[in-house]
Amino acid sequence: MAVQSADTGRTTGTPTGTTGSVTTASGTVDLGPAAALSCRECGERFPLGPIFACTSCFGPLEVAYDLPLGDPEALRRKIESGPTNLWRYAPLLPVPADVADKPNLNPGWTKLVKADRLAAELGITGGLYVKDDSGNPTHSFKDRVVAQAVEAARAFGFTTLSCSSTGNLAGAVGAAAARAGFRSCVFIPHDLEQGKVVMAAVYGGDLVGIEGTYDDVNRFCSELIGDPIGEGWGFVNVNLRPYYGEGSKTLAYEICEQLGWRLPDQLVIPIASGSQLTKVDKGLQELIKLGLVEEKPYKIFGAQAEGCSPVSTAFKAGHEVVRPQRPDTIAKSLAIGNPADGPYVLDIAHRTGGAVEDVTDAQIVDAIKLLARTEGIFTETAGGVTVGVTKKLVEAGVLDPELTTVVLNTGDGLKTLDAVAPTTGPTATIRPSLDAFRAAGLAG
Amino acid sequence: MAVQSADTGRTTGTPTGTTGSVTTASGTVDLGPAAALSCRECGERFPLGPIFACTSCFGPLEVAYDLPLGDPEALRRKIESGPTNLWRYAPLLPVPADVADKPNLNPGWTKLVKADRLAAELGITGGLYVKDDSGNPTHSFKDRVVAQAVEAARAFGFTTLSCSSTGNLAGAVGAAAARAGFRSCVFIPHDLEQGKVVMAAVYGGDLVGIEGTYDDVNRFCSELIGDPIGEGWGFVNVNLRPYYGEGSKTLAYEICEQLGWRLPDQLVIPIASGSQLTKVDKGLQELIKLGLVEEKPYKIFGAQAEGCSPVSTAFKAGHEVVRPQRPDTIAKSLAIGNPADGPYVLDIAHRTGGAVEDVTDAQIVDAIKLLARTEGIFTETAGGVTVGVTKKLVEAGVLDPELTTVVLNTGDGLKTLDAVAPTTGPTATIRPSLDAFRAAGLAG
Ligand SMILES: [Zn+2]
Ligand SMILES: [Zn+2]
Repeated sequence: MAVQSADTGRTTGTPTGTTGSVTTASGTVDLGPAAALSCRECGERFPLGPIFACTSCFGPLEVAYDLPLGDPEALRRKIESGPTNLWRYAPLLPVPADVADKPNLNPGWTKLVKADRLAAELGITGGLYVKDDSGNPTHSFKDRVVAQAVEAARAFGFTTLSCSSTGNLAGAVGAAAARAGFRSCVFIPHDLEQGKVVMAAVYGGDLVGIEGTYDDVNRFCSELIGDPIGEGWGFVNVNLRPYYGEGSKTLAYEICEQLGWRLPDQLVIPIASGSQLTKVDKGLQELIKLGLVEEKPYKIFGAQAEGCSPVSTAFKAGHEVVRPQRPDTIAKSLAIGNPADGPYVLDIAHRTGGAVEDVTDAQIVDAIKLLARTEGIFTETAGGVTVGVTKKLVEAGVLDPELTTVVLNTGDGLKTLDAVAPTTGPTATIRPSLDAFRAAGLAG
Repeated sequence: MAVQSADTGRTTGTPTGTTGSVTTASGTVDLGPAAALSCRECGERFPLGPIFACTSCFGPLEVAYDLPLGDPEALRRKIESGPTNLWRYAPLLPVPADVADKPNLNPGWTKLVKADRLAAELGITGGLYVKDDSGNPTHSFKDRVVAQAVEAARAFGFTTLSCSSTGNLAGAVGAAAARAGFRSCVFIPHDLEQGKVVMAAVYGGDLVGIEGTYDDVNRFCSELIGDPIGEGWGFVNVNLRPYYGEGSKTLAYEICEQLGWRLPDQLVIPIASGSQLTKVDKGLQELIKLGLVEEKPYKIFGAQAEGCSPVSTAFKAGHEVVRPQRPDTIAKSLAIGNPADGPYVLDIAHRTGGAVEDVTDAQIVDAIKLLARTEGIFTETAGGVTVGVTKKLVEAGVLDPELTTVVLNTGDGLKTLDAVAPTTGPTATIRPSLDAFRAAGLAG
């Protein structure tokens, strides 16, 4: 079996060609170039399967590849002639080569918006881009990771897709399962707002309200995975997590391809668990290794809300350990108080010369409005965090305004209307007359 | 000046080449292949400008083109190598050749989803596709028409974009103006729901609540256009309407290109003013004329809500005149009781062998859930109308299940949550225990 270190790209063992089909406990699994799972901590390898933790050291597992290290030009042409969704990168993802023929929501290939008006307001002169993942099918980046989980679930013969969620993930899983023909069973705290419940329930899968907190929901899901009931169930961010996480790499691939196969100089990425940031870095490293982009330095900046800033707090204090926090912020999609990939994020910020910063809830709201007013992009609170942190880092002289900068917008403002509603309304309310219009000072 | 009949494609007058720049009352206007405006009723021609009604007969004006009637293969290659947004069709639209370099939300190139699971439920065997315009920047097809209006406004030197709206259009105009650097001033009834107000206001333009009904809002806008205050204002669907309307043609272009440069056999299109349906037909006719698709019969079906069904009522009664109705339906984005293009829709339905049908509010809700459950697409009420009518037409034997059928989804369910909220919720609410889960009958 050909296996490859995710970190070095070197192949070990006996090559079996590029099909990547692997015999596991659950039979022959074709996940394209994915060759094995490897432990992020100790490097131990495991056959591809629905497992997520190292049996030796309990470290997180990630996908190791037989990457197509041949002619970069040929690979580039193959990608460019592929579908305008994330499966154009199928040769670099844990999916079979014919993935584009299977029913899937096919997210990705979202717009990379040249944000000149925002750049002018922020004083960025080197080129500012917003990678706008609100264009995905359920309007958040979660569609990317769930799309990967669906294909892993298919490969492992699962028939039910599941997750615990308080927001974006519930809708992404419900929609993806409906499209792919899986049963879905999604768990939420029983007291979610009605709008979020509707978004999760409308796809017709089972939606279960759990009487308890989000932590209770997660504990219950862990019980389910260990119980016979959970056999045949793919929990997208638990037993399918190694595959799920790889979806975030496609953000890196798309950004570079959309920049003309070029690395940006600086990226600003929101931090929830930290997985997205680490996977974007992994994706950039792979592009360098494959010769698809020219190697050069880039800096990765992480963005958090002050009300849930365990990683930025550690970064600023110079700690290597991330101390858990109790979240209290309007940026609920980032409100993970004990982020699993926090230490890796710190590593990457240090290694690339980046930083981790946070902004207050008021700054988040201001940044949502700033992005809407300058670029016509209405982002959810997570996007307000990223834009707000970008502004703060420029003002502090940490982010270099003369370098090409990419900011990630991972979600849609329609899902967090409450954040801006109290301060967003009509300029004026008038009788239908020209005199009233003039009196309101709106005649320009 | 080279002008061309929109109906026949024949050129009259003195050709000036293909740049399409035209000298008008407001100076030299470069709108690419657009050569003139022509009256849909009497055929009289007018120079390109911000006018919308024929001075002879008050008929609606539409854009007449110098279309590139040369080598279809070369044109096809040019389109295919263009951007993945509606500007890939710039050679066929009233926009300058360098339109893709200007700040615009760049909508379009949305997914054409092969809807096999929905097809199976409806009994369609000839191939069913959903053209999913919820993937546009503000998640409705309005981004297409507004994108065109923005470029016309730029060409005519306007500095303010305006409209009256109760929904999708307000957000589309606010966002497009922000991105393009225009001032916007949008008029809404003062008693809109807060969510819709937020979506319209967040882009930072002026939003004016008018104390009165939507009709009062429209009357006030007409006053504004005639007043000196309104000079320099582009009302996207009034004085820019001939350009605005052309945006809907891109739906036809994209559908055919995504089918492999092939006409579908049947299309189901929602009817509000009827403009979208007539422009899709115009787009299909242009593709035939240009040799980009092989000519063959196609049928166009119109979809309305029973609570606002002036066109389907006229169609069923065999009338040529559309009698206005007072709308009363949950499909508010289609609730135009006196549709301007109603007679043209009837013509097209008759000419192509199609039909116009309507569904009840309950059927709309069922169809929203059907589409969500089978394809993972959460549509707004207008999409429920279209899917519901498709179902009804198949059951009635009017729509041929053995033919390739395309259904338009023009908007996003996140904007009309209220339609499904009363009947969409958790399957169960339980304590966090395996016993409770089993007792709820969810263990599968
Ligand atoms: Zn280990
Ligand atoms: Zn006329």
